[in-house]
Amino acid sequence: MHSVSELSKLYNDKFDTDNFYSGKMNLYVPVKHIMQIPGKRIRPMLLLLSCDAFGGDVQSALSPAYAMEIFHNFSLVHDDIMDQSEIRRGMPTVHKLFGINAGILAGDVMLAYAYKYLTDVSAEYLPPVLQLFNRTSIEIFEGQQMDVDFETRNDVSLDEYLKMVEYKTSVLLACSLQTGAILAKASPTDQQLIYDFGIQLGLSFQITDDLLDAFGDGTKTGKKTGGDILMNKKTYLYLSTQENCNAEQTAQLQSLTHDPDENRKITLTKEIMKASGGYDITLNTAQELYSRSLQSLEKISLPEPRKAELYKMAELINKRDY
Amino acid sequence: MHSVSELSKLYNDKFDTDNFYSGKMNLYVPVKHIMQIPGKRIRPMLLLLSCDAFGGDVQSALSPAYAMEIFHNFSLVHDDIMDQSEIRRGMPTVHKLFGINAGILAGDVMLAYAYKYLTDVSAEYLPPVLQLFNRTSIEIFEGQQMDVDFETRNDVSLDEYLKMVEYKTSVLLACSLQTGAILAKASPTDQQLIYDFGIQLGLSFQITDDLLDAFGDGTKTGKKTGGDILMNKKTYLYLSTQENCNAEQTAQLQSLTHDPDENRKITLTKEIMKASGGYDITLNTAQELYSRSLQSLEKISLPEPRKAELYKMAELINKRDY
Repeated sequence: MHSVSELSKLYNDKFDTDNFYSGKMNLYVPVKHIMQIPGKRIRPMLLLLSCDAFGGDVQSALSPAYAMEIFHNFSLVHDDIMDQSEIRRGMPTVHKLFGINAGILAGDVMLAYAYKYLTDVSAEYLPPVLQLFNRTSIEIFEGQQMDVDFETRNDVSLDEYLKMVEYKTSVLLACSLQTGAILAKASPTDQQLIYDFGIQLGLSFQITDDLLDAFGDGTKTGKKTGGDILMNKKTYLYLSTQENCNAEQTAQLQSLTHDPDENRKITLTKEIMKASGGYDITLNTAQELYSRSLQSLEKISLPEPRKAELYKMAELINKRDY
Repeated sequence: MHSVSELSKLYNDKFDTDNFYSGKMNLYVPVKHIMQIPGKRIRPMLLLLSCDAFGGDVQSALSPAYAMEIFHNFSLVHDDIMDQSEIRRGMPTVHKLFGINAGILAGDVMLAYAYKYLTDVSAEYLPPVLQLFNRTSIEIFEGQQMDVDFETRNDVSLDEYLKMVEYKTSVLLACSLQTGAILAKASPTDQQLIYDFGIQLGLSFQITDDLLDAFGDGTKTGKKTGGDILMNKKTYLYLSTQENCNAEQTAQLQSLTHDPDENRKITLTKEIMKASGGYDITLNTAQELYSRSLQSLEKISLPEPRKAELYKMAELINKRDY
């Protein structure tokens, strides 16, 4: 068994030197930019922790772990173009620095490299690992499309929102965890449980994120508090508020979407979120999903000590102190 | 052994119904648009012909054949965004009809589906098929980057141009052919020969295309004659002209790049292409590459009748009557 920091060292030692983006070609300059911004590397760590928990060989899981990180960064590059985002992890986004064309092409080649590193697994694991990854990547693109569609819709249900988050955010966490389990020859039941753990953890993470965007401490989140409210984003918090407003609150919420006074818009919308019960419902949902994720982890047929690092990782991902 | 039209029927019968893009999601509307424009389906046909020539089971090669077509269409969608092209095969391009964001996301999901169909091959073939495909897709993106870089360079050599065409165009033809050979358990030597056949055929095709753009019959090519000249594109024809100009021709060619009179620019540039010898060199190079592709085909250790359809296909691809 390895700790997160041991796995992190193994991973960094390998991929700080085994760089696919260090060549001279212009193609790799934007790739290097996004890959070198320090991040938490949650997906590769989940893959390695899962493989290790089930008694697999973490050395042979390093390349697929890297594949998850490359895929995640690819999706950020293309999403940032689509969302016209200018800042990512405190740095200018790829297309902002290098142009949209460079962003498209850098993303494309990163997706190909994700598959290349994934193909490094032993031949016996290749079919299940690829089938899972193919399905996951398709779901992620479908999730991104749902997110785009929701911007122009006024009738998004909470279930639809959860489906979108499941596809856009959760499935890659779940895929990382299950891939680690596949490489360690975990049983199909355990594979499903660790996949479910990832899905529920991802949902709880995103809903907590929605809460923090409006009610968190901007100096700790690194984002402008109320950013989602200003953009009229249909988050779980917003949708559950909408569902629970009385007639007066509904009218007020509606008129606030056009309010040009940013501070008033944020303050009054937050008041309605609290008064309607939307805030409490959202907080309960996030906690409920987090408990369910831990229940999935509990059910896995491994002695509890083998799951200790996964519990820690879940806590790290979910329990942010702001 | 099957004829091209028999293989084409098998392929169409399967994929006219087995559509991954017929769902209701908005994501698949642009995918359907590009996939349903009638095309020659050269890459899947090459894969199936190669598999058939080496005695493989063409039924099991249908999914990877489809993967090549999906990948090709994906690359057209993203390239058209980067090149700001508005027309493709006589129809509006995807981003022109649906917007850049839809084009990016449609392309991404097509790339994932290409891998999904490729993963359909039997497990024993998965490692070599994927390794070849991963390498090929990375080369294609590198080729696209070279093409982008060449636009702002004035010192592109003929060798660099050939490398760009090899990556951007040839490797997918070669990969399709070799994948068919892998699925039919062809020997490594024969795999290399059929790969080389594809590389040389692709180069000869592209150089002939460069010639036709300037000297072809626009009513037959479906393109405006001299389009490359107007755009100052650094084609093989242009570069070999540049290399063979005398001092006076060099000065004239240079000043023509800024000539606002389109007809004069095209007519005079073509005159220099002929007079300098650039035209003849280009024609010879295309013919030489085509002969070399046939020589690679000849060397393959199969009785000549088994290669008959591949010869026909090479002729079809290369010997256009305009």
